[in-house]
Amino acid sequence: MAYNLLKGKKGIIFGALDHKSIAWKVAEKAHEEGAVFTLTNTPTAMRFGEINELAEKCNAEIIPADATSIDDIENLIQKSMEILGGKLDFILHSIGMSMNVRKKRVYNDLRYDYFMKTLDISSISFHKLLQTCYKFDAINEWGSVVALSYIAAQRVLYGYNDMADAKALLESVARSFGYIYGREKKIRVNTISQSPTRTTAGSGVKGVEGLLDFTERMSPLGNATADECADFTMVMFSDLSKKVTMQNIYHDGGFSSMGMSMRAMRQYNKSLDGISEDDI
Amino acid sequence: MAYNLLKGKKGIIFGALDHKSIAWKVAEKAHEEGAVFTLTNTPTAMRFGEINELAEKCNAEIIPADATSIDDIENLIQKSMEILGGKLDFILHSIGMSMNVRKKRVYNDLRYDYFMKTLDISSISFHKLLQTCYKFDAINEWGSVVALSYIAAQRVLYGYNDMADAKALLESVARSFGYIYGREKKIRVNTISQSPTRTTAGSGVKGVEGLLDFTERMSPLGNATADECADFTMVMFSDLSKKVTMQNIYHDGGFSSMGMSMRAMRQYNKSLDGISEDDI
Amino acid sequence: MAYNLLKGKKGIIFGALDHKSIAWKVAEKAHEEGAVFTLTNTPTAMRFGEINELAEKCNAEIIPADATSIDDIENLIQKSMEILGGKLDFILHSIGMSMNVRKKRVYNDLRYDYFMKTLDISSISFHKLLQTCYKFDAINEWGSVVALSYIAAQRVLYGYNDMADAKALLESVARSFGYIYGREKKIRVNTISQSPTRTTAGSGVKGVEGLLDFTERMSPLGNATADECADFTMVMFSDLSKKVTMQNIYHDGGFSSMGMSMRAMRQYNKSLDGISEDDI
Amino acid sequence: MAYNLLKGKKGIIFGALDHKSIAWKVAEKAHEEGAVFTLTNTPTAMRFGEINELAEKCNAEIIPADATSIDDIENLIQKSMEILGGKLDFILHSIGMSMNVRKKRVYNDLRYDYFMKTLDISSISFHKLLQTCYKFDAINEWGSVVALSYIAAQRVLYGYNDMADAKALLESVARSFGYIYGREKKIRVNTISQSPTRTTAGSGVKGVEGLLDFTERMSPLGNATADECADFTMVMFSDLSKKVTMQNIYHDGGFSSMGMSMRAMRQYNKSLDGISEDDI
Repeated sequence: MAYNLLKGKKGIIFGALDHKSIAWKVAEKAHEEGAVFTLTNTPTAMRFGEINELAEKCNAEIIPADATSIDDIENLIQKSMEILGGKLDFILHSIGMSMNVRKKRVYNDLRYDYFMKTLDISSISFHKLLQTCYKFDAINEWGSVVALSYIAAQRVLYGYNDMADAKALLESVARSFGYIYGREKKIRVNTISQSPTRTTAGSGVKGVEGLLDFTERMSPLGNATADECADFTMVMFSDLSKKVTMQNIYHDGGFSSMGMSMRAMRQYNKSLDGISEDDI
Repeated sequence: MAYNLLKGKKGIIFGALDHKSIAWKVAEKAHEEGAVFTLTNTPTAMRFGEINELAEKCNAEIIPADATSIDDIENLIQKSMEILGGKLDFILHSIGMSMNVRKKRVYNDLRYDYFMKTLDISSISFHKLLQTCYKFDAINEWGSVVALSYIAAQRVLYGYNDMADAKALLESVARSFGYIYGREKKIRVNTISQSPTRTTAGSGVKGVEGLLDFTERMSPLGNATADECADFTMVMFSDLSKKVTMQNIYHDGGFSSMGMSMRAMRQYNKSLDGISEDDI
Repeated sequence: MAYNLLKGKKGIIFGALDHKSIAWKVAEKAHEEGAVFTLTNTPTAMRFGEINELAEKCNAEIIPADATSIDDIENLIQKSMEILGGKLDFILHSIGMSMNVRKKRVYNDLRYDYFMKTLDISSISFHKLLQTCYKFDAINEWGSVVALSYIAAQRVLYGYNDMADAKALLESVARSFGYIYGREKKIRVNTISQSPTRTTAGSGVKGVEGLLDFTERMSPLGNATADECADFTMVMFSDLSKKVTMQNIYHDGGFSSMGMSMRAMRQYNKSLDGISEDDI
Repeated sequence: MAYNLLKGKKGIIFGALDHKSIAWKVAEKAHEEGAVFTLTNTPTAMRFGEINELAEKCNAEIIPADATSIDDIENLIQKSMEILGGKLDFILHSIGMSMNVRKKRVYNDLRYDYFMKTLDISSISFHKLLQTCYKFDAINEWGSVVALSYIAAQRVLYGYNDMADAKALLESVARSFGYIYGREKKIRVNTISQSPTRTTAGSGVKGVEGLLDFTERMSPLGNATADECADFTMVMFSDLSKKVTMQNIYHDGGFSSMGMSMRAMRQYNKSLDGISEDDI
């Protein structure tokens, strides 16, 4: 079901890898809601991904870019404005990568060149994107920029490693730049803190199956899906959320406001001797 | 501009007093977005208000109710379901009143019968509403309940008095009941923490003009208006925010994420000797 | 080990019931740290408790008081100042009770007279205490008032029921009155948010054994004990925390900053088929 | 007044520059409380500072170290253990520097090599310190590590620039490593979020005089001084806060819990036409 929420709006969507990606769903929905946009990802990611299929479906051009490269970002923004025929109204930043996670370096044994790279790719890329847009005056008044985050920015989750710090930095950049972009150009910048999601990128995280079971039982509405996240992203890009800025909004079925649920407690109690499943 | 976001949805809107009320704007927008609903307020409020005009415009019936009375709430819910022809999809709770504020009892000289009344009207009424809906199974799956709150729930604002405690309690009720309603019925409960707003109800608050000037300059996007708050409420009632629950979302132009802005600092500096306006 | 942190300080300690009570431990430590104080509890609680033993040990007088009664609080404060020979330097508020919990009324089936009583006993009593102290000018400059709270004020824990709302209200009262008492008298007001603790009062909470196992494994330092909470309370009463006010400080072994720990995840995974205990 | 809170404890104190530094005060108090420790700062800082005077007063050795250099940190930790005759019990991290601030690059015109340097010096140095201690098993069970932070980690303050992001990252590192160090070694890691303080390092921040006036009037107890911060740091190093970990504790006279105070509002109103100073 579509509402024409983004009719006539122009944008850039980062991070669509395959049909499981949140960014993929965002692109599909944005298309349905009447937006035009370009798609971007790293050259490497695009080799493996199925992004051409998405581009065709959404009638969108693909502009490869390394999000840590100012040159690439400049090219992306300028090309996007040319292709779309004007300034942007929305941008989705859905980028994260940790070599420490990939190489199984635990948090008390980080390589610092990897750590720096984690921050550069996952957080500072957001600043580079915003600063470059600002310099080119590339976003219309009341435009909306969203980055995807995770509750690890506030609470430690075993195995999430230096990505937690990257998300904390990302959310800080959103606040810091959101202040300036709001003040000067009436543009808002927010993060959406999404449930753990079974994406191709997310599936590398340690122990993800047990965690997904736990968060599903903890969240009164269950984990939010990629599709539902895309729905909420439409809202954040639309004119209906004009005065929401510098916020981190939890889109997580209620997980962030839970200390312990009946369902998770019952499941947990099954692991304990001498406590009945229903003894709560 | 309307999007049909609430097409076919049924609801109840509390708290429309006059055309400045946020609830008034919510009713207008909900009507435009395709919803049908009933309106309610206290018998007293309706004597002074212009609610009949709104009801006519929105083709809505008015059902008076004292929000602290279980009987009145039961009647309201049952009548609303009869009139609307089925269960509800959304409810707006926009209710607050402090006799301590009205009678100019400062926070260190409260009357406790007044304090209890503040909590009953402004916070416990929300629990009564939710519990009564729950008993009558009056809300459809994936329905949405929103209460209006204020940042005084987190940070002390001089003069807001016991209403700050009432808002903290209100937000807690939203979390606590949101857990149960989410778990059992897939219904979400959230609060929107709105900028200070020049409503008839809000204008009694001490020193509101200076505060509005300050928050306007502190918020990078300026204070959010009642109209904009109504826009965002549409989002929260729509199917696009299905997995957002137990949250308090700041709709405040960025105020909640500010420590000090350039504009507010410059204004403040004008009050100080020996500091130039631009000395920042 | 004692440090003379409270040498010469005078206070009132609410809520010591038996040797498991946090308030009991606070009294013992305060005595060791050189303080003099009175003890108080409800007449009913004292019938069952062993408070006389504590009073003797600490050389403290007992003044029964119903914390919801202004008369009783006035009497308590005046008598305490007489007995101790001057104004107070510290107060511990450790009071909470829910008839809904006791009578097994779940949160979606509350009795409102009980709910009001929960708030009156557990939260408004704190305002009554502060307002009465303020009127009698009963606390010295740089005095310190602490109330015990629980993370249920921020996150829903199944079974904690309307006590969660009471703790949210309690913390709000601490902020609201902390502002006034700070501004006018340089007196600080804080809450300590303590781990779930195996006290006599706490043991009535539903499913407490499973929860204690979970929080023990989630908290990197394990659950904080009543003894450790008393240690930290000494700090908050001492002159070393003079500029900490209107805060809720988590004394919980790190639980509040955890999303998922290795130990809790491993235990949880035992309850799941097809996930190895070490598969994380 | 001293209490012997750190009797027999060994530590390292980073960041003492001159007698205005918080770290300087921490060293003085730690000495009074019975601790022995080494002092460290960058070679450059030591050229300008008066750290020799402090070292003499506290009977402490100075070990220069660039906090971004693993080699220097390793040397610092090993030398400190040799000099002090055993493992450490406490560490203070009080380090922050932004070339963007120094070179007056505003936040929407950052140089990224500077930004990376800001993060490396101000935040990642904390991880390097913790990881190196972990590898050498250099801290005793129940040891305590504290880093100094600022509310800019949560709320934007005009002019604080990329230091805000650095503080957000610093606090995240404290949580992330606090989890591991707590779980494995019973060592706690916290940040103290201190009032803006008139230190030599802090005085470079834009518009600091107006801000200090504002925060002084907003905070019910006034801004916390460097001396008071050192007092509270003693607490965090002592055995009385053993179960507090992964927290960011505001030591700020109440500022963080304020939305608007009477005193700040009155001052602000002086800058406005047509609003009387007392019209609040």
